[in-house]
Amino acid sequence: MDPAALSELLAAVAAGDVEAADAAERLRRLPYADLGFARVDHHRPLRQGMPEAVYGPGKTPEQCVAIVGELLQGGDGPVVLTRASDEQRAAVLDAHADGVTTGATVVWRALSPARPERIVIAAAGTSDGPVAAECEAVLCAFGFAPLRLDDVGVAGIHRLLPHVEALATADAVVVAAGMEGALASVVGGLTAAPVIAVPTSTGYGTAFGGVTALLAMLSSCAQGVAVVGIDNGFGAACAVTRVCNQRAGRA
Amino acid sequence: MDPAALSELLAAVAAGDVEAADAAERLRRLPYADLGFARVDHHRPLRQGMPEAVYGPGKTPEQCVAIVGELLQGGDGPVVLTRASDEQRAAVLDAHADGVTTGATVVWRALSPARPERIVIAAAGTSDGPVAAECEAVLCAFGFAPLRLDDVGVAGIHRLLPHVEALATADAVVVAAGMEGALASVVGGLTAAPVIAVPTSTGYGTAFGGVTALLAMLSSCAQGVAVVGIDNGFGAACAVTRVCNQRAGRA
Amino acid sequence: MDPAALSELLAAVAAGDVEAADAAERLRRLPYADLGFARVDHHRPLRQGMPEAVYGPGKTPEQCVAIVGELLQGGDGPVVLTRASDEQRAAVLDAHADGVTTGATVVWRALSPARPERIVIAAAGTSDGPVAAECEAVLCAFGFAPLRLDDVGVAGIHRLLPHVEALATADAVVVAAGMEGALASVVGGLTAAPVIAVPTSTGYGTAFGGVTALLAMLSSCAQGVAVVGIDNGFGAACAVTRVCNQRAGRA
Amino acid sequence: MDPAALSELLAAVAAGDVEAADAAERLRRLPYADLGFARVDHHRPLRQGMPEAVYGPGKTPEQCVAIVGELLQGGDGPVVLTRASDEQRAAVLDAHADGVTTGATVVWRALSPARPERIVIAAAGTSDGPVAAECEAVLCAFGFAPLRLDDVGVAGIHRLLPHVEALATADAVVVAAGMEGALASVVGGLTAAPVIAVPTSTGYGTAFGGVTALLAMLSSCAQGVAVVGIDNGFGAACAVTRVCNQRAGRA
Amino acid sequence: MDPAALSELLAAVAAGDVEAADAAERLRRLPYADLGFARVDHHRPLRQGMPEAVYGPGKTPEQCVAIVGELLQGGDGPVVLTRASDEQRAAVLDAHADGVTTGATVVWRALSPARPERIVIAAAGTSDGPVAAECEAVLCAFGFAPLRLDDVGVAGIHRLLPHVEALATADAVVVAAGMEGALASVVGGLTAAPVIAVPTSTGYGTAFGGVTALLAMLSSCAQGVAVVGIDNGFGAACAVTRVCNQRAGRA
Amino acid sequence: MDPAALSELLAAVAAGDVEAADAAERLRRLPYADLGFARVDHHRPLRQGMPEAVYGPGKTPEQCVAIVGELLQGGDGPVVLTRASDEQRAAVLDAHADGVTTGATVVWRALSPARPERIVIAAAGTSDGPVAAECEAVLCAFGFAPLRLDDVGVAGIHRLLPHVEALATADAVVVAAGMEGALASVVGGLTAAPVIAVPTSTGYGTAFGGVTALLAMLSSCAQGVAVVGIDNGFGAACAVTRVCNQRAGRA
Amino acid sequence: MDPAALSELLAAVAAGDVEAADAAERLRRLPYADLGFARVDHHRPLRQGMPEAVYGPGKTPEQCVAIVGELLQGGDGPVVLTRASDEQRAAVLDAHADGVTTGATVVWRALSPARPERIVIAAAGTSDGPVAAECEAVLCAFGFAPLRLDDVGVAGIHRLLPHVEALATADAVVVAAGMEGALASVVGGLTAAPVIAVPTSTGYGTAFGGVTALLAMLSSCAQGVAVVGIDNGFGAACAVTRVCNQRAGRA
Amino acid sequence: MDPAALSELLAAVAAGDVEAADAAERLRRLPYADLGFARVDHHRPLRQGMPEAVYGPGKTPEQCVAIVGELLQGGDGPVVLTRASDEQRAAVLDAHADGVTTGATVVWRALSPARPERIVIAAAGTSDGPVAAECEAVLCAFGFAPLRLDDVGVAGIHRLLPHVEALATADAVVVAAGMEGALASVVGGLTAAPVIAVPTSTGYGTAFGGVTALLAMLSSCAQGVAVVGIDNGFGAACAVTRVCNQRAGRA
Repeated sequence: MDPAALSELLAAVAAGDVEAADAAERLRRLPYADLGFARVDHHRPLRQGMPEAVYGPGKTPEQCVAIVGELLQGGDGPVVLTRASDEQRAAVLDAHADGVTTGATVVWRALSPARPERIVIAAAGTSDGPVAAECEAVLCAFGFAPLRLDDVGVAGIHRLLPHVEALATADAVVVAAGMEGALASVVGGLTAAPVIAVPTSTGYGTAFGGVTALLAMLSSCAQGVAVVGIDNGFGAACAVTRVCNQRAGRA
Repeated sequence: MDPAALSELLAAVAAGDVEAADAAERLRRLPYADLGFARVDHHRPLRQGMPEAVYGPGKTPEQCVAIVGELLQGGDGPVVLTRASDEQRAAVLDAHADGVTTGATVVWRALSPARPERIVIAAAGTSDGPVAAECEAVLCAFGFAPLRLDDVGVAGIHRLLPHVEALATADAVVVAAGMEGALASVVGGLTAAPVIAVPTSTGYGTAFGGVTALLAMLSSCAQGVAVVGIDNGFGAACAVTRVCNQRAGRA
Repeated sequence: MDPAALSELLAAVAAGDVEAADAAERLRRLPYADLGFARVDHHRPLRQGMPEAVYGPGKTPEQCVAIVGELLQGGDGPVVLTRASDEQRAAVLDAHADGVTTGATVVWRALSPARPERIVIAAAGTSDGPVAAECEAVLCAFGFAPLRLDDVGVAGIHRLLPHVEALATADAVVVAAGMEGALASVVGGLTAAPVIAVPTSTGYGTAFGGVTALLAMLSSCAQGVAVVGIDNGFGAACAVTRVCNQRAGRA
Repeated sequence: MDPAALSELLAAVAAGDVEAADAAERLRRLPYADLGFARVDHHRPLRQGMPEAVYGPGKTPEQCVAIVGELLQGGDGPVVLTRASDEQRAAVLDAHADGVTTGATVVWRALSPARPERIVIAAAGTSDGPVAAECEAVLCAFGFAPLRLDDVGVAGIHRLLPHVEALATADAVVVAAGMEGALASVVGGLTAAPVIAVPTSTGYGTAFGGVTALLAMLSSCAQGVAVVGIDNGFGAACAVTRVCNQRAGRA
Repeated sequence: MDPAALSELLAAVAAGDVEAADAAERLRRLPYADLGFARVDHHRPLRQGMPEAVYGPGKTPEQCVAIVGELLQGGDGPVVLTRASDEQRAAVLDAHADGVTTGATVVWRALSPARPERIVIAAAGTSDGPVAAECEAVLCAFGFAPLRLDDVGVAGIHRLLPHVEALATADAVVVAAGMEGALASVVGGLTAAPVIAVPTSTGYGTAFGGVTALLAMLSSCAQGVAVVGIDNGFGAACAVTRVCNQRAGRA
Repeated sequence: MDPAALSELLAAVAAGDVEAADAAERLRRLPYADLGFARVDHHRPLRQGMPEAVYGPGKTPEQCVAIVGELLQGGDGPVVLTRASDEQRAAVLDAHADGVTTGATVVWRALSPARPERIVIAAAGTSDGPVAAECEAVLCAFGFAPLRLDDVGVAGIHRLLPHVEALATADAVVVAAGMEGALASVVGGLTAAPVIAVPTSTGYGTAFGGVTALLAMLSSCAQGVAVVGIDNGFGAACAVTRVCNQRAGRA
Repeated sequence: MDPAALSELLAAVAAGDVEAADAAERLRRLPYADLGFARVDHHRPLRQGMPEAVYGPGKTPEQCVAIVGELLQGGDGPVVLTRASDEQRAAVLDAHADGVTTGATVVWRALSPARPERIVIAAAGTSDGPVAAECEAVLCAFGFAPLRLDDVGVAGIHRLLPHVEALATADAVVVAAGMEGALASVVGGLTAAPVIAVPTSTGYGTAFGGVTALLAMLSSCAQGVAVVGIDNGFGAACAVTRVCNQRAGRA
Repeated sequence: MDPAALSELLAAVAAGDVEAADAAERLRRLPYADLGFARVDHHRPLRQGMPEAVYGPGKTPEQCVAIVGELLQGGDGPVVLTRASDEQRAAVLDAHADGVTTGATVVWRALSPARPERIVIAAAGTSDGPVAAECEAVLCAFGFAPLRLDDVGVAGIHRLLPHVEALATADAVVVAAGMEGALASVVGGLTAAPVIAVPTSTGYGTAFGGVTALLAMLSSCAQGVAVVGIDNGFGAACAVTRVCNQRAGRA
């Protein structure tokens, strides 16, 4: 209940238009809802630009349909379904037809790409592509138009160097890399922008499903690189959104 | 070599003031230094607001004195010595007298606290204090005036709630927590600001020197929480600086 | 052999009704059976309210049928089959028709829900549902009527707060959470009741199949939270039963 | 703000005694303080019987003195200092003279041992003693008079069997064991009481500082054994207190 | 080249029947083959009673057929195929008809069960059965007639006690247990015989595929328990065979 | 209570020499003591040749003195103190003068070396010496006269080959090796005797304090190698004693 | 931009043939492209003899076809596809017909086997075969003719000894071994050649998918053994190629 | 026994100068000594250029003195003592005066630096210095004159680029790096030379004492990078020596 509504209610009580008991009842009946509502006030800016999202794995197609439907009805912002199987996507798009599919991600009500921030998503190898794509799709849902740099892993450092300018002038950079995850350190040394590193489960043997890249990114010799969970392209997009929303909010 | 200097040199060649051979020599003699210099151009904004820092452990007091001295001479920005032992601090402050000590951190030439960003550092327990203090000292070195919230761990959620407003309106939040690291998730749900989580080695038994908090923070159910290494208060400060510098740069 | 029976036997010997040699034989012939029997006496209260249970995975449907049959014949209390596959459930229900299925759990001879204890099962997310459901089904088998709180994870702390009263007045609380498992700490700070935390294998990447939640729960900053194994909803129900049986026994 | 106070306020608004704006201000200004205060009400029973505790390691003797002093002033229940070094204990007892030391634990204002619950603390080996002692000291602080069974590890199962009766009739059992931690399983099979298992860092080689015992206890084949963190005798005592307080509350 | 052959060769040289140069050539030409042959002499007793064995997983049915065939032709002792799939077993038995199947193990040319040693195989739960069965089948291949004790896990210690005599008088005991593996410690305390512990991958959650049982068995508080790899029933049988062969050899 | 004593008691009841009530009391009063006593009968052969042992670390010198004293008084077999510090050894030898020190092990009442079994202790490197020495001292305490082979690691396989005969004809072989622990596999291939492998914490970097050797030994490609815990020379000696006692018992 | 070109450009500026501004533009416009190009010069020798390779897993057959096609067009050296599934191989060979398949590896344009270096690939067991085969196929692609030694694991050390000469005189040795990986240490002690150890995921239980062999090889007591990732036969071949190319380059 | 000696013996038998039986006895009596001797022949080239080395930690100064003395007497090549403490170095240099100390390494009889191979040792940070220095000292002992590149970590990629030429033309490159170990990948992409990566225990938090760098290097996206154990500068030097000795041998 926002201050205005509260004032209005109390004014109505003062004016005799609402009984004190009714007002008490209204306020009392939903103390937590109210509290929640009040908190929703705090949450509203929080949620501005933050996606309503559904994580596909472990859910039946029916559950996906239902939850996506609920989210579409419960708000008017973007809704995202991630890591959806073919079957899940088929079912959900059948029920909620206007979703846009990118890889394993489906987005409804993406904002039009009007945000000015320059976001770079650098992926070390082609197999880091799906994670980068998830990140990109989620950023697009919020109206960003990120620049994708693919296959710029450090074993061929010359592939990365042409993009130094783009990295140096970015508002935020997401680095998706598996195996030894060294790209995060190199990129972190080439830009002063916030760097969000996403370890990917790309690789085999001692890559250990992303653990090696995770540890390497957390131990990066580049100052101030921040890390999200393995394969969490969605989380990286959210971290970028946090960075940019605040900035926009202050402008 | 920046474009102006390059144009100037070439103009001098064209004007006959500089011999072509001399110019070639100058350009050729330092291809990498030049390249490096060019890159320093990219690096200069990168380094703006990024600390020149020395990590104390494993160095002799003499080495600390020497490296700090070098950094003080090589630039005019803040210089930071972290996790310095008593002996290291004594030696370094003896040699470079105007450093300011906070816990195990020493800062020289801190910028005056003129930056407007509202940074919150939330520490779960009193034993997370040293990590929070390191983060705070480094942020102060850059002219931030962060707000410290201490002892706001989730086992007493009522201790955190009075600060919801501060969290919701922050430009960036650092969360330092050991043990199960749950504070990052709770804070992440209470603010839309960038959240940098620092797992600390606080705790015992199954806290495993910060690994439990690290894993928990990486697995946070709050969207977009980003994580730095265990006890890395310095890294969190750098991540915040990256966030705020970019914002400032665009304003 | 209880004291009365022993006295009786010895009296019969003294009276000449039983030969000393026969008595010796009786006592000697079954030292361990006797011991076992005696121990069964100790076990009887132990088993009161503790389920006869079969863990489905790794057993053939035929083995499930046989073991459930044996347990149904060997006692008259509740019998529980957990984590049964579709095939296992079909076979077992075909053979032992009066079982009641909840998710992957089947219960025979559930006690009528007459127990007065207020048990709360709090699940952090919808994907923790199956673990919470297993716990609930087993508790119901013993005559409890637990209160389920679903989707009360800490990233939206406002979802949990309306239930503070229920938590504070519970006789025991089970917390099922995956990912970073922070809910256990928050709940542990909101109730003085025994809290049994069940880490779930929910989550991905650094959730590591429940290990992160497990470590986080064991390291909880809330005092006195006790933990069972990953996904062990059955074990949590048994721990609650231990707590409540003792209490009932003393009343 | 309780319903009565709320009704009263609204009635005053209706009566014109309080301005609507003032009421709005009052309601708006203190939602969280109010909430916090209300929550303290929930916390009060929660804290009944739960210790105010200080964990020694990592604190200076001065910090220990200060925190213990604060806790002694801030309430009138038991105050516990755990894992205190010799130096810490000396300093704290010098400042707060009436503490009672048991091993590395100091207790102030222990309740008189009047609680009727039968608590058993079973320790596998002599080196598990310090953990068992910490648990015992904390339980004594709350007025329990636990029964200690020492050196009853499973390699000599005959040492445990004389205590079967005590285990079977206990209200709660704490099992402290290192190495392979098997005692928890054996005890869990001998009693229907709540069993709180504490893995200890006792042992060497593959005991891995308590990890082996921890995993073994979490994987116990005895149903419903619950586990706290490694060496966490304090946590086990708190878990027992949770169990018994609730029981007492319902009686 | 055995001593007799060597003497014969040298005698032939002495007698002039073989040229010294030819003898030198013969001896020199096959130094390693010769050495190998000599070493086979040492290997022969080694292999007495040790199985020729094929590990099924990862081999095609055709490869199984070929390798078993080779082993059957290359010697006259028992041949064992372990962990064979249905398809592998079908193919191999089709080709080498007289194999005897027990679970996933097939044995050809088992020795008649004439060995006098009393071997006990104790399995904690029914799901440890396949590992115990593999061990049993291999032991039977060597002419042992082991005693199987099933479902004697420590949570019901009364189930084990009737077998104390059998354990105490055994020549060797194999303990197969998963979950927390506590049976090894209890059995180790009940017998002076060699105890070979086999951790099994039985269990779920924190059993971690046998790692928990493995660590627990290696950390057993019972003196002198020796451990083989996870699920390695075959290895346990071989360890027992080593023990008993030596004994037989010395008798 | 053995059968004869039981018959006698019952006969006395039948004869009226003992009251039935008194007999009941006697039988009832000491069921567990009796049971324990009976079990001690089983334990006696178990303990034959098994050491009474004290593990030094974590005990005060006074505790070592007391426990050793107790063991010396409570029996007449060998008593062993392992991994004793200089201070512990000084204190204990001062109190119990006739102990014999080998490295960090002290033995009292060692049996005279009359046992005929040929035990080989093979140590890979000089730094595995202390573990091999502990094993040797404990075996000597039981009257074995083991053969030590030092510095026979596999990187110089020629150092091991001269001892092939000794290995092939041994009654049991203990292999102590750190780093990659390969010696166990090589020795296991050279002898049919029972092989007890002891991983040692020798090595650095990826030796991980013995874990690498432990895993390697458990995964040995040599059939039937059995493993004890890291650095557990004592446990290896006990395992050998189990092997040889049984053999001796059957002779 | 090489020195000559630079001098030429500057001379043209001095001569007035090129405007200073144009020269500045030219120099400024392509610093990285130029640099990149220059670096390609450094890369050319680097790539000589190094394979253009595609890692199959995680790619669709279509992607494999496309990438292989690109590599075939983009150069004229060998192209390698590793770990290709049946389906991938079928598709790729259909599109690019002249590939030669060995196991799961396909090679196009293998160099004729003209290189003189003696490379030995020693595989411990038959199940290490696929890894050894991958290594062999890649080496063959570069014109090596490696010697394969199969089934020479250390449990039967006599199988390895006949090949001592081949090992001692090799130019490089690759050792592929799973389980405990001991073969690397034994081979490392038998040759002065570079030894590249490849841990394989062969084995079960405590082999932990190659981790045990990996750790063992890294901890090898043989000096100077170098290790590549688990199952990385391709990487071992590349390491050998690095060794031999340099040698060839210097000859 | 070399061919000539064998021929001579057999000729003596043929001539009647030696009895056949005596010859048989001689040949039979020393098969392994002979074999050993023969193998020493194989070992001699193996040891050429490989250091006689002593690892300091865990040895008393006296043991160091003795072992170094033995090695100095037993050959005439270089002798190396690594990771020696101050005390060890003092004692050893006192006894064997002509050793040359570099950091914690002492070398006796270093070969004069005459080897032509260009070896580069690249260290990521100053704290990787001791490992690089150990590697350098051992290489110098063999007559190499390696080029040290210090502080060329990837966070400042411009520091590495001036050395691209040196890397591209090296005969072998050693990369010492801690933290995330990314330098190995970058260097591996800049040179076709053999790259030996040494993870160092440099770093804190998630560097996990070198494990992160180890895993990263093993997972390097640069083809054919080979890895030695953590901090094993000595091992890297030996690996380089293997590479270069073979090359020299073939020249």
